[in-house]
Amino acid sequence: MLYQIIDILGTVAFAISGVLVAMEKRLDLFGVLIIAFVTSIGGGTLRDLLIGNTPVVWMRDLTYVGTIFITVVFAIIFVNQLKYLRKSLFLFDTIGIGLYTMLGVEKGLEAELLPIMCIFLGTMTACFGGVIRDILCNEIPVIFRKEIYATACIVGGASYFLLISLSLKESYAYIVAIIVVISLRLLAVCFGISLPNIYKFRS
Amino acid sequence: MLYQIIDILGTVAFAISGVLVAMEKRLDLFGVLIIAFVTSIGGGTLRDLLIGNTPVVWMRDLTYVGTIFITVVFAIIFVNQLKYLRKSLFLFDTIGIGLYTMLGVEKGLEAELLPIMCIFLGTMTACFGGVIRDILCNEIPVIFRKEIYATACIVGGASYFLLISLSLKESYAYIVAIIVVISLRLLAVCFGISLPNIYKFRS
Amino acid sequence: MLYQIIDILGTVAFAISGVLVAMEKRLDLFGVLIIAFVTSIGGGTLRDLLIGNTPVVWMRDLTYVGTIFITVVFAIIFVNQLKYLRKSLFLFDTIGIGLYTMLGVEKGLEAELLPIMCIFLGTMTACFGGVIRDILCNEIPVIFRKEIYATACIVGGASYFLLISLSLKESYAYIVAIIVVISLRLLAVCFGISLPNIYKFRS
Repeated sequence: MLYQIIDILGTVAFAISGVLVAMEKRLDLFGVLIIAFVTSIGGGTLRDLLIGNTPVVWMRDLTYVGTIFITVVFAIIFVNQLKYLRKSLFLFDTIGIGLYTMLGVEKGLEAELLPIMCIFLGTMTACFGGVIRDILCNEIPVIFRKEIYATACIVGGASYFLLISLSLKESYAYIVAIIVVISLRLLAVCFGISLPNIYKFRS
Repeated sequence: MLYQIIDILGTVAFAISGVLVAMEKRLDLFGVLIIAFVTSIGGGTLRDLLIGNTPVVWMRDLTYVGTIFITVVFAIIFVNQLKYLRKSLFLFDTIGIGLYTMLGVEKGLEAELLPIMCIFLGTMTACFGGVIRDILCNEIPVIFRKEIYATACIVGGASYFLLISLSLKESYAYIVAIIVVISLRLLAVCFGISLPNIYKFRS
Repeated sequence: MLYQIIDILGTVAFAISGVLVAMEKRLDLFGVLIIAFVTSIGGGTLRDLLIGNTPVVWMRDLTYVGTIFITVVFAIIFVNQLKYLRKSLFLFDTIGIGLYTMLGVEKGLEAELLPIMCIFLGTMTACFGGVIRDILCNEIPVIFRKEIYATACIVGGASYFLLISLSLKESYAYIVAIIVVISLRLLAVCFGISLPNIYKFRS
């Protein structure tokens, strides 16, 4: 139950981030809908395609499409008020990537993939909706350029397999891993931490 | 037979729209070919991937590849004459999206998806070739920005399920839905109708 | 054995080309990794998706991910030295597209596709990693704009089927086709040959 509520909050947060980017680009109603949609379900769709899990998950469950649609309608109407919710949205988004990461890891385990591939799938589930959003809006994806974001997902996914290998119970490791993703992201944003600058090597 | 002729005319119209965009971007021969190709078959390919219908349809049937190849050769040679065909091309394109929408809906029904997902697949079949074309040409997809285009497909697809639920025979509903898509697109272009402006809500 | 060494050299060359493009765009460490990754395995991934060969190949074999990761680390550290390796890199890349082309053709044959579709898959395997790299970096794909590149793959793939139809043994035809791709690319670059200019038809 809690799980489903968080899943929906994550979907909402991702959809709103899509609406905001799309409206900045002055897309029309259809464009805004599609961008909100791919931001929310793009990562999971790519994951399902890569492991051959078709029809992809949102085609078999109305919850996602319904949630996104309602979110878009409200987001467009209350777009001026959204700025007061910036902190809540950031929190939903952060909880969302934590949960999506472990959802992706789980799908990888079901497909009997190696741990590193599961971590990869988890990171993709959490981050690639935003990548597709940015490509459709003709931007270089933001997660390739700044902030700890995908890195939090990778570390969180890795911590799951580390804890399992230390014989921790799976359900505990699952929850700890989600907390690791969320904490890393919060810490990185609060303290302005980013990846080491690789351009210092250059002359 | 009529069905196949329209299918080929749609493929031709989409391929030509690809050639025109690619030549505007000064791509080379190979680039023009690929853009024509993805404009024609990109939407159907994405649809087939999402429902797991692989190998995708144009890999198993030479008609599409052959039609597109011949179209590109003629379009490049007669590019200066194409402007006199603007109206015919618009008509083919419009008939094309009507037909492609219902093709996508049909594939969704075969995969036993919910009506709303079938409508989604139909719209994707008709519109996402153009989306991929625009992404490859480094543009924000045109259908996200102006004109009734995808909206015509959505309304047409919805009208199919409405008519079925009113116990109309499937084949009649199929044809009516195609006519709805075509009429809406024609009306929208003739009268300059576009989606409601969502930016008036902004301060 | 030789086969695997060339496969790895190709992967390395593609990954380095990804690093160079990504660093030019000033992406961060994660961005550089992802771009290197998609440049190396993007073409094969798209091929596997289109023919329904999932989970895609690099998910079931650590060699690719490991090779790319090590390559990226070294490429970032020695980025200033890479310019002295320009010729070696070009050679690896050229050998890489030769090999990747025939790998793709082989997968098409396994999926019992028509020769033209096999050639298509081979060209996609060799070239579309670079296409996805350029899209993610917000550029019009370079292979759509200049140089003989994809064309070498197409001609090489076609020569394979020509030789087979002339009753040449498959393994010989396979090797000759790879040599055709490599030679064409080398000749094109050495003599500055490009595709015929299609814009001379314009007024």
